[in-house]
Amino acid sequence: MKSALDPSDVGGYAELHAMPVWGMGEISPGDSIADLIVDALALGGLRLHAGDIVVVKHKMVSKAEGRMVDLDTVKPSAAAKRFAARNGSDARVTELALREARRVVRKQHVLITETAHGLVCANSGIDVSNVDGGKTAVLLPLDPDRSASRIMQKLKKRTTLHIPVIIADSFGRAWREGLHEVAIGVAGMLPIHDYRGQYDCYGYKMHSSEECVADELACVAGLVCGKRDAIPACIIRGYRYRRGNGSARRIVRPATKDLFR
Amino acid sequence: MKSALDPSDVGGYAELHAMPVWGMGEISPGDSIADLIVDALALGGLRLHAGDIVVVKHKMVSKAEGRMVDLDTVKPSAAAKRFAARNGSDARVTELALREARRVVRKQHVLITETAHGLVCANSGIDVSNVDGGKTAVLLPLDPDRSASRIMQKLKKRTTLHIPVIIADSFGRAWREGLHEVAIGVAGMLPIHDYRGQYDCYGYKMHSSEECVADELACVAGLVCGKRDAIPACIIRGYRYRRGNGSARRIVRPATKDLFR
Repeated sequence: MKSALDPSDVGGYAELHAMPVWGMGEISPGDSIADLIVDALALGGLRLHAGDIVVVKHKMVSKAEGRMVDLDTVKPSAAAKRFAARNGSDARVTELALREARRVVRKQHVLITETAHGLVCANSGIDVSNVDGGKTAVLLPLDPDRSASRIMQKLKKRTTLHIPVIIADSFGRAWREGLHEVAIGVAGMLPIHDYRGQYDCYGYKMHSSEECVADELACVAGLVCGKRDAIPACIIRGYRYRRGNGSARRIVRPATKDLFR
Repeated sequence: MKSALDPSDVGGYAELHAMPVWGMGEISPGDSIADLIVDALALGGLRLHAGDIVVVKHKMVSKAEGRMVDLDTVKPSAAAKRFAARNGSDARVTELALREARRVVRKQHVLITETAHGLVCANSGIDVSNVDGGKTAVLLPLDPDRSASRIMQKLKKRTTLHIPVIIADSFGRAWREGLHEVAIGVAGMLPIHDYRGQYDCYGYKMHSSEECVADELACVAGLVCGKRDAIPACIIRGYRYRRGNGSARRIVRPATKDLFR
């Protein structure tokens, strides 16, 4: 029987430690997320270690990149007004969501769209909470993989370390209640761990075992950062990621395989 | 402006630590998962602390409960044979999946069903990997909430501590590639953290913020236990859960709200 239990091969298996990054303060357009993280850690007497992963809530990235819209400047279309009136939502947010969508997936109770990034989520990922009390909407970063890559490069400059970066957002999902965090941007590690064709401990060849570790790492950030974005980032220590040119686009299921369009 | 940043109220915010439970050995029908965990920890000089959460991979629970079927005893129906022939799968597994399903959700490439528990997943959650090399299929526990509750009660007897228990399985999802862990059984804590109606740091009332912390905790187990079930459980320390009569049924979206049936 083929033995295949090689920890270096299968990832995980070690203790995992996740630390919220306190004290990053309010984020403004033009801010460097990497600098804010390194400086906030230093204030607490902490620093990044080799092997660490940084997870950043997307809203901070969007704010730093100026992806914000004053809702007073948004003129909702008739369609946006109808939907909003029917569902008790803000027509300006619906309007923005439709503008940011390349496809409407469902339009009952909630507006579920596919964004330009291929992400399927409510309202094209547009969020009004945790900004400024309801005057401004925050859009998703234009290219979250690139945002992650930029933060990673800056972290390398500051620390000389290779630190993978995941940008996380809270998404709903089909069939299950409650949001959970997912990775919408990834840099420096493979987002999906592919076990297919490998053998389990009993010599059985595994068929459908691709694990989205980037989403699981994003979920860790959900637990340590909370939902109110008072803590915009966390450090995950102890997870044996696989280094590579990761991209969150790899997590988006291609249309040909999508049974729930 | 209403300030609402009360850490005791919002959960999370602390460091989180997750430890794999090594050395539980092979699990057989009738085994007590709680005893195996406490004994395995003791062998490593470890013990459960107040505030810990235990996450157990469902397969260990199913094995302990004898939810196994010898595939040689399964006679596939004509429908199961047709589906399996078209998709290169094992007709006996398809047959079991159809028997365990209360509804077929999709039947292309993969068989996606709704189980008696209301869980929507591939093959009714039936798994052949990590058992005995392909001879035996493992079904989901009959009542994973009850299984979690039983393990919790036994842990209390052994340690006098209240330790919430989550039973986790790897599910695929719509629109996204790769499996991730979800909670199919929960005891001793609320699986969903409800922020609705609370205010963010800017005084904005949050509308659609229910967070499925049970699934996020299950994802932590995915990261520290790996996919080959060599490590059937993990301890999560530092997450401020909300105590309560939790149930994974709370996570199942009711049919009336389900847009992807």
